Amino acid sequence: MKTDLSSVKALVFDVFGTVVDWRSSIIADLEAFGRKKGISADWTGLTDDWRGAYRPTLNRVIKGELPFARLDDLHRGTLDGLLEKYGVKGLSEAEKDHVNKVWHRLNPWPDSVAGLTRLKRKYLISTLSNGNVALLTNMARHAGLPWDCILSAELFRAYKKEPAVYIGACDMLCLKRDEVMLVAAHKDDLLAAQQQGLRTAFIPRPGEYGPRKPPAEPPGFVPDIEAPSFVALAEKLGA
Amino acid sequence: MKTDLSSVKALVFDVFGTVVDWRSSIIADLEAFGRKKGISADWTGLTDDWRGAYRPTLNRVIKGELPFARLDDLHRGTLDGLLEKYGVKGLSEAEKDHVNKVWHRLNPWPDSVAGLTRLKRKYLISTLSNGNVALLTNMARHAGLPWDCILSAELFRAYKKEPAVYIGACDMLCLKRDEVMLVAAHKDDLLAAQQQGLRTAFIPRPGEYGPRKPPAEPPGFVPDIEAPSFVALAEKLGA
Repeated sequence: MKTDLSSVKALVFDVFGTVVDWRSSIIADLEAFGRKKGISADWTGLTDDWRGAYRPTLNRVIKGELPFARLDDLHRGTLDGLLEKYGVKGLSEAEKDHVNKVWHRLNPWPDSVAGLTRLKRKYLISTLSNGNVALLTNMARHAGLPWDCILSAELFRAYKKEPAVYIGACDMLCLKRDEVMLVAAHKDDLLAAQQQGLRTAFIPRPGEYGPRKPPAEPPGFVPDIEAPSFVALAEKLGA
Repeated sequence: MKTDLSSVKALVFDVFGTVVDWRSSIIADLEAFGRKKGISADWTGLTDDWRGAYRPTLNRVIKGELPFARLDDLHRGTLDGLLEKYGVKGLSEAEKDHVNKVWHRLNPWPDSVAGLTRLKRKYLISTLSNGNVALLTNMARHAGLPWDCILSAELFRAYKKEPAVYIGACDMLCLKRDEVMLVAAHKDDLLAAQQQGLRTAFIPRPGEYGPRKPPAEPPGFVPDIEAPSFVALAEKLGA
């Protein structure tokens, strides 16, 4: 039996991979930066390694091995080692900061802006991302994402998939759990939200990891709704 | 000597009275509600008393006499007594909630949307209000306010004019104090921001309190910039 979605008032979105194509965006941005500075490096390898360090680093925060820090600072902590590994030398502090903030300059998937614009007519739309508030706000300005609100793990000092993030988002929107639906390309994120009583929409983004193998998915998870794009999701939801 | 404003990257806005005309909006909304329900009452008196209770209630939170609670809950605490005082009887819980949420349905001053839209081209624009996140987000949807981000006292569990609110906003935007300018119709709010190193823009809203006398202003305060409307502010800032 299908879940009744008529109670849903707000859609909260995972961002990296779901709304924006982080991999192509970062590779293109850093390649352009390298050309401008005359630095030749394997920017694709650096990008994949950088993202590869993401989940292990967040898990260390979740386990309490690292104190809570905003994602910009965690990214920077990883970046310094990767610049060394990939032989990128001689960057000034301002240049390293520019490279680190590439996560603020990610581009949307082709359907993201049109789909969000349409979904916004019927639903409150917000981020619900591990990205920090400044990162998500700058990204929205860069990519033209029409959020009603920026909700971030930073506000709850906890990272997805900790329950506090999903619960905190519902609480801050003053909505009941079944009035909020998480939209994500990652089933582990959706499963964690579902376990807290939120509704779930799965949008597969098969290109997210390029030729690399995506992380394993929780077996047997069934979302409330699935659509191949945000525009198709709007269509299915009557928005 | 004029302060150099070229460092400013974000404008954060006081909302009640600065962006929206709370008094006319609430009176009109509650009069329409009363007509629909067949309830005759002095809605203007109730509105003025409701707002009159705002600062004393927040001051009790600031002094620690009341635990931190979101503005919706503080409004509701005051409303119940005022409904009794003004002889408004027989409302259901859902109707009382509807009345309380009139603060989510406030209308902008005539220049607000056009001015914000223009300022957004050059600056990151955010709320910085004592209103809670859901209130500000719902209001933005109602009034068409094109915020990049919703910053609220709720995020810092402190009310303006406590320093934590101004400092917290700069921190969350990852900006230095002199990269953030508070835009407000109230000199006490601007003075508190200025004392924390923020830039200040004063927009007088002489109609805010209707025929009532506005609260006293701190003597001798000089804002960095003053303009009669958001559109005029955009003009002065080259946005």
